[in-house]
Amino acid sequence: MRAKRFLLWGIVLCTFTIINLYLYLNANQNKEITRNFSLTQEEKITIYFITPTYWRHVQKAELIRISHTLLLVHNVHWILVEDAPNKTKLVTNLLRETSLRQNYGFKYTHLNEPTPMHFKTKDTDPNWLKPRGVWQRNKALEWLREHSNSINTNGVVYFGDDDNTYDLKLFDEIRSTTKVSVFPVALVGGLLVEKPIVVSEKVTGFNSVWQPNRKYPVDMAGFAINLNLILEKKNVLFSENVARGYQETHLLKQLVDSYDQLEPKATSCRKILVWHTRTQLPKLRQEKKLKIPSNFNMLDD
Amino acid sequence: MRAKRFLLWGIVLCTFTIINLYLYLNANQNKEITRNFSLTQEEKITIYFITPTYWRHVQKAELIRISHTLLLVHNVHWILVEDAPNKTKLVTNLLRETSLRQNYGFKYTHLNEPTPMHFKTKDTDPNWLKPRGVWQRNKALEWLREHSNSINTNGVVYFGDDDNTYDLKLFDEIRSTTKVSVFPVALVGGLLVEKPIVVSEKVTGFNSVWQPNRKYPVDMAGFAINLNLILEKKNVLFSENVARGYQETHLLKQLVDSYDQLEPKATSCRKILVWHTRTQLPKLRQEKKLKIPSNFNMLDD
Repeated sequence: MRAKRFLLWGIVLCTFTIINLYLYLNANQNKEITRNFSLTQEEKITIYFITPTYWRHVQKAELIRISHTLLLVHNVHWILVEDAPNKTKLVTNLLRETSLRQNYGFKYTHLNEPTPMHFKTKDTDPNWLKPRGVWQRNKALEWLREHSNSINTNGVVYFGDDDNTYDLKLFDEIRSTTKVSVFPVALVGGLLVEKPIVVSEKVTGFNSVWQPNRKYPVDMAGFAINLNLILEKKNVLFSENVARGYQETHLLKQLVDSYDQLEPKATSCRKILVWHTRTQLPKLRQEKKLKIPSNFNMLDD
Repeated sequence: MRAKRFLLWGIVLCTFTIINLYLYLNANQNKEITRNFSLTQEEKITIYFITPTYWRHVQKAELIRISHTLLLVHNVHWILVEDAPNKTKLVTNLLRETSLRQNYGFKYTHLNEPTPMHFKTKDTDPNWLKPRGVWQRNKALEWLREHSNSINTNGVVYFGDDDNTYDLKLFDEIRSTTKVSVFPVALVGGLLVEKPIVVSEKVTGFNSVWQPNRKYPVDMAGFAINLNLILEKKNVLFSENVARGYQETHLLKQLVDSYDQLEPKATSCRKILVWHTRTQLPKLRQEKKLKIPSNFNMLDD
């Protein structure tokens, strides 16, 4: 009788201990699960951040800066498309290292698509003469369509160049895009801010001064698109055959019918959350005098 | 007898349960403690990141970019000094919002110190004509000395301008500075990279082409100083009376006696971890045609 009672209590005690120890040891894991459960509905939406990039002296610096911003955003998938015949070591290493840097690093897809020879901007060309980024952004759109079965289709597409500046609040804003959202962009088109004009929560026009006859006179950084719209309208792409400044209009005309369908973000387009910053070309006057370049024997990665 | 045994077992069981529950409920807290214990010796060293800043159209964008970098660094204390007679709302709000954004946000100190009127760079002056940042950096050095009793003196001082680009690895490197460390800076002085020349782990010279007669021909972003050296040599400051390009030499001459004492970082100065990036002034041609500025009625913060 006594032995039985001992056994009974022993079993109860062991069970309790095991359960509690289990709970304790799994606290980390549980915490992780709690974190996922506590993601808001919006944070479950993936932002597909499409960035064309090309080699120049400031490329690595620009990519480092933008990668720091993306490291701080929940649930972002960076599609970085090099304008190059092959993926470069610089971009490959940078993506691998950066994405591993923090606990909440971003997902990424590294692609490359060279601009056709006769469309290449030459050193002597002004940078607006020929279309730029068209083939790279199209490559990313095609990648999304080809992988629609294996990616989170609860997503939003944004064209984020590697030299712009993004407030973290921008990502909170565009995540809820149901069709096409629009918002102000600072320091573009010769203005302090280019913005949609919003009356009673509806877009009624745009304030652009440069080429105001465009149907959608917005910068590439001034709109976001729900991924499902990109997947449904599967032939929508940028074009090499449209006039300068008309890429955005060319794309948006294929996605929406009128201003009515545009969703104004950023507090009815009254806040600036993205800046069209441009980095100066470095001055290399002294470098030209050198017989051995100053970066000779530096460790590259 | 039976009641006694019941009581005894009851007490044992309760104690076990309470201990285990305690452990479980405190798992988060314990995890936090573990994290602090697991900080390496180096991560306990605070980086005092001193940034002078002044108003211009791209100021907010630049501060946002740099704040994203600093949010990703352990144990950084940002000393942001406005070149202004008063602290501005823009910088005040940006610091408050950003530092709260992430779990591991940075500490900061917001100061202001106007450049004396006769030293102000005019719009028509080239940007190198008059000394810049002298009064703001000195203000930060004085703040460190005045607060040496209340801050972590296990620290390193770095002069990080608001428009440069910093690799996260730079912070890992400079944290172990025992006196003065030096390392390459890209895209400065007319070169692809300005760097100390290192032979057998010792600095033997510099590769600068511009003003190579300076004793320490390094950029402001190319060195870091152990805080204790700043506190010991309490009169060391920048000066408004030194020729263009000589601020760094003026400071370093007061801190070290020879190249021998300089600690080469960044894999014997063979890696680039900081870029002297410069942002273009925005083109505002269309803005000038407007009667009402394009940013009228935008929500400022």
